[in-house]
Amino acid sequence: MKQEPIFDVAQLAHFEIYSPKIEESVKFFTDILGMTEVAREGKSVYLRAYEDIYHNSLKITENSEAGIGHMALRARSPQALERRVKVLEEMGAGIGWVDGDVGHGPAYQFEAPDGHIMEIFWEVEYYEAPESEKTALLNRPQKRPGRGVPVRRIDHVNILASDTNKTVEFLEEALGFRVNERILADDNTDIAAWTSVSNLAHDIAIMGDMMGGKGRLHHICYWYGYAQNLSDVSDLLLDNGYEIEEGPLKHGVSQAQCMYVREPGGNRVELFGDAGYLIFDPDWKTVEWKGEDLQKAVVWHGSELQPEFMKYGTPDIPDPAEAVSEEVGAEKTNV
Amino acid sequence: MKQEPIFDVAQLAHFEIYSPKIEESVKFFTDILGMTEVAREGKSVYLRAYEDIYHNSLKITENSEAGIGHMALRARSPQALERRVKVLEEMGAGIGWVDGDVGHGPAYQFEAPDGHIMEIFWEVEYYEAPESEKTALLNRPQKRPGRGVPVRRIDHVNILASDTNKTVEFLEEALGFRVNERILADDNTDIAAWTSVSNLAHDIAIMGDMMGGKGRLHHICYWYGYAQNLSDVSDLLLDNGYEIEEGPLKHGVSQAQCMYVREPGGNRVELFGDAGYLIFDPDWKTVEWKGEDLQKAVVWHGSELQPEFMKYGTPDIPDPAEAVSEEVGAEKTNV
Amino acid sequence: MKQEPIFDVAQLAHFEIYSPKIEESVKFFTDILGMTEVAREGKSVYLRAYEDIYHNSLKITENSEAGIGHMALRARSPQALERRVKVLEEMGAGIGWVDGDVGHGPAYQFEAPDGHIMEIFWEVEYYEAPESEKTALLNRPQKRPGRGVPVRRIDHVNILASDTNKTVEFLEEALGFRVNERILADDNTDIAAWTSVSNLAHDIAIMGDMMGGKGRLHHICYWYGYAQNLSDVSDLLLDNGYEIEEGPLKHGVSQAQCMYVREPGGNRVELFGDAGYLIFDPDWKTVEWKGEDLQKAVVWHGSELQPEFMKYGTPDIPDPAEAVSEEVGAEKTNV
Amino acid sequence: MKQEPIFDVAQLAHFEIYSPKIEESVKFFTDILGMTEVAREGKSVYLRAYEDIYHNSLKITENSEAGIGHMALRARSPQALERRVKVLEEMGAGIGWVDGDVGHGPAYQFEAPDGHIMEIFWEVEYYEAPESEKTALLNRPQKRPGRGVPVRRIDHVNILASDTNKTVEFLEEALGFRVNERILADDNTDIAAWTSVSNLAHDIAIMGDMMGGKGRLHHICYWYGYAQNLSDVSDLLLDNGYEIEEGPLKHGVSQAQCMYVREPGGNRVELFGDAGYLIFDPDWKTVEWKGEDLQKAVVWHGSELQPEFMKYGTPDIPDPAEAVSEEVGAEKTNV
Repeated sequence: MKQEPIFDVAQLAHFEIYSPKIEESVKFFTDILGMTEVAREGKSVYLRAYEDIYHNSLKITENSEAGIGHMALRARSPQALERRVKVLEEMGAGIGWVDGDVGHGPAYQFEAPDGHIMEIFWEVEYYEAPESEKTALLNRPQKRPGRGVPVRRIDHVNILASDTNKTVEFLEEALGFRVNERILADDNTDIAAWTSVSNLAHDIAIMGDMMGGKGRLHHICYWYGYAQNLSDVSDLLLDNGYEIEEGPLKHGVSQAQCMYVREPGGNRVELFGDAGYLIFDPDWKTVEWKGEDLQKAVVWHGSELQPEFMKYGTPDIPDPAEAVSEEVGAEKTNV
Repeated sequence: MKQEPIFDVAQLAHFEIYSPKIEESVKFFTDILGMTEVAREGKSVYLRAYEDIYHNSLKITENSEAGIGHMALRARSPQALERRVKVLEEMGAGIGWVDGDVGHGPAYQFEAPDGHIMEIFWEVEYYEAPESEKTALLNRPQKRPGRGVPVRRIDHVNILASDTNKTVEFLEEALGFRVNERILADDNTDIAAWTSVSNLAHDIAIMGDMMGGKGRLHHICYWYGYAQNLSDVSDLLLDNGYEIEEGPLKHGVSQAQCMYVREPGGNRVELFGDAGYLIFDPDWKTVEWKGEDLQKAVVWHGSELQPEFMKYGTPDIPDPAEAVSEEVGAEKTNV
Repeated sequence: MKQEPIFDVAQLAHFEIYSPKIEESVKFFTDILGMTEVAREGKSVYLRAYEDIYHNSLKITENSEAGIGHMALRARSPQALERRVKVLEEMGAGIGWVDGDVGHGPAYQFEAPDGHIMEIFWEVEYYEAPESEKTALLNRPQKRPGRGVPVRRIDHVNILASDTNKTVEFLEEALGFRVNERILADDNTDIAAWTSVSNLAHDIAIMGDMMGGKGRLHHICYWYGYAQNLSDVSDLLLDNGYEIEEGPLKHGVSQAQCMYVREPGGNRVELFGDAGYLIFDPDWKTVEWKGEDLQKAVVWHGSELQPEFMKYGTPDIPDPAEAVSEEVGAEKTNV
Repeated sequence: MKQEPIFDVAQLAHFEIYSPKIEESVKFFTDILGMTEVAREGKSVYLRAYEDIYHNSLKITENSEAGIGHMALRARSPQALERRVKVLEEMGAGIGWVDGDVGHGPAYQFEAPDGHIMEIFWEVEYYEAPESEKTALLNRPQKRPGRGVPVRRIDHVNILASDTNKTVEFLEEALGFRVNERILADDNTDIAAWTSVSNLAHDIAIMGDMMGGKGRLHHICYWYGYAQNLSDVSDLLLDNGYEIEEGPLKHGVSQAQCMYVREPGGNRVELFGDAGYLIFDPDWKTVEWKGEDLQKAVVWHGSELQPEFMKYGTPDIPDPAEAVSEEVGAEKTNV
């Protein structure tokens, strides 16, 4: 009888991004995506989507360059937290406990194989809307804002890793993530993987960093669940000087009807306008896309992605291929 | 050979409603429906939806009671305007020329048979968005606002008449309206009629006033074209203390996916969340609903309407039936 | 430290309904809801929605009256299955093992407190689409059918119980269901509860049987995730002689944009046209609706439900209240 | 005072396409787009969408190569027909009267400047659904089919012309088409124009033929009005071996949320999934897109179009540019 899976992690609870233009970033998330600023502390601003249950899901920290600060997981119970910390310590991945942050209690920080900082915690602050923001819809923590086209909740994060497999195995073994879908190279090594601890098709996705970077962010994602809202927000984005990088389109992987935009700090943000497909099967066989199937994995409905989509991440780094070709070009010119 | 139809009226261009709570009414149309206040003059505020081509489509005038001020039609040409004025004068329906109003030039005012005031004009002011409101979508006169769930354009008006037939015939004969759909009583008299001069299923609808009133308004209507936006705005309405009277639902007549809400001044506002069906046939045979078909005319998808829906209009007047029964009750009690 | 929750049940995997008109029932599910008939055995027909991962999710068994045959849960692992069987046996709820059925292996059957038959199993047959039904969308087990407006997957079941609390407690204690939302009477007893083992707002809902029945079904539910598809299928239903009982509307509880129709055998079927809200919080505090909040729980957007909605279930039983009043009426007449 | 506009043409009523694979073409329109085959005569099959009012809107005629057979306009009245025929004769564009065709009476045929065959008629056959296809929705001529993802009605046609301006001027002067939008080259000559006689943003669009062809078809278009249906039909198209050429995307011009697919005969078909914006202004100023605005005209939301989109039309003809470069290449190789 196979060993039982690990059920100790419940969800992706929040993430921190770095922004060199913090006020412009905040303006983007509040005015366009209708998020609510709930706190400021030090160099950080804390934001929430109106269906986020906890106090906040996005921390933006001022920094000289864009990128991901950390990703935070909520354990399923205090006991589950203890078990995971023990394993992380044994694996030598641990950084150590922090006292907590605005919106949550003590968190154990650790480093994923590519250098991404993660944390896991149990104690959390639920959002208590001020009287003016309370809704009669009791299963919703806050009124739908009348500003922008408001996203509903945090969805997932997609990170770039120099060695996809190592990060994926770490998430599986240390934390119990299930690998739901994979894009494979011809030699069967992972190019990308979509993993989750919930019924979502992905809580964390990992893609190979084509630029040879380490610890970079591909995108964070917020959820609408309704395709019309992608169209609605596209108008706001275009009319207010934001450029839509890709989409609306529908991926094969995860069946996401979605679009990608860069917030003013430079980080890519995905907006998810589909109900998505959910995975209830506890013994799910990883879906593997390769060879001729691969194109449909990337785009099911819509146009091919630009090469930039696979290269750009934060922090932004120069393309080594272009560096070489420029050098070659330079040499040529010298001759 | 049948006489050619009249093509002299192009569209319903704007309407004026009365409100005893004008600032609350303006707040409703701007904050919830995302309309833009474009002018104030005297006791009136002028508003526009972001896809309205002309300067404004809604004039709200302070008044002791709610109701419809006037409805305005744009002629198809200056010549067409002259022809219509001549006919209206000959019919004895004319009130006379007014100098114009904010957003349009000289208008000929006239009275429909039930006392509704209408006007027809040619010269119009196109909306010129300030620089900050211009959009790169050149066929749209203004950016989509980032406020509320913004309606796109004026759609139609629905009036109550003590004698439906008389008003319908007037619209047909004096102005060239086509009767697209009808609800008929068993004796084949009109209970309600949907008429238009455009490809829409209705620019003006007329329903029998069950309360015996004269010149009342049933509702004005703004258009989204997208059902999701009805769901989006429902959240805003409910969360901000506005009551949804009916819907979202889908009528058989006009195939409107829609909802009804009362603005703070008391007037009923319909929000239209469907592409609608359009009528291109120049020889359209009026669709007649009666007897057992009638229920589907009123509601195609969704629940039956409350009796209040057919009774309430603005200005609000007491139900003669209830007055009688109360009297009867009073007498009974006296005995 | 609180005891850890039970994670042994993964999902609602299928259900069996009884139909006195089995061929008409099958026609409804295949022609209108676009489901696929995958097997027949004895008096039963097995059907699947195109995104159901396993062989089938609906078993329709010929029977003299409508109702629910059984509901089946899939355990999270073989070990989890063993643990649950042990607990069920200890509680005296067990019926015993069955060899399995079309599409799954050995199942342990048991009886919930109101007499509803349930089963739990591990071994399952994944659907293998014939070549003509395979799709290039590798995370989907079958092509979207070109027939009807096809539902995507099984969603939940809603049962009626003479004592709601007893069934809810049984699901919590024996199987680890979380109570996500509740409607409470003024004395704080459950009128209805929405429970789940997954991130869904409900896998199984339980409502008090107002007719005093036992073991009855309120409805089964299939999922679209897209509101437009409710509108699409409404046309098919109405045009083909099926009556829509309620909706489209949006509940407060579960935020379901949905509609209800009765299949020809008499069982009520809900169609779910919303992305829904998902629950990731492992320590979710049950949302409690009562008193004045209650109306919004039942209908958030749309019209009030008809009383019939709360009374009708399968098998259909006479209304004891009406029986009494008829008797009273009869007596009166006799006098 | 400016001369009054011509109101003699009511609508685009139907079109005829040529197909070298007629049975496969019919299968595409009936199985995927849910259209109904209503007649066969000679080498032609006649089809209708379920909200088309007249007998048919699409005639597919067997032919050695794909392309457009003819486009048909319905006059606004018998008198309007007479007036237009007189003008067409005077302009020397006339071909002459034909007796009619399946679904309509006598039609006057004429040739547009680039060789496209058009006709105009008055007498028409309304669709009479057989009993099994009648719907209770009396303003709809036929039940929504339970097959494929059914399109609702004919929308527009887009033709390629060697000299855009000449065709546009012909439509304006001979038939009263209004030029709603234009894409202009730097020297202000038309690259493309969108013209209509109805409130639609286009009944007929004309684009410059980049391949130097004459009388070719860019695409015909059918209308859903709902974006979700584009997503629904995309699944059917991809799963059944049809390739989606472009989209779903949203054009700036016409604000169409749409997609393009080639039917098996080779003709491009657009599917329109948006409510669209409608033009009610009788004095509409043509929207002109050029220079830096042009990109937004082509794609408002979504990815850039492939160059093939502007080149491919039916009948398909070789790219003169490639012919030249191949020759050049050949010469080079020869050296």
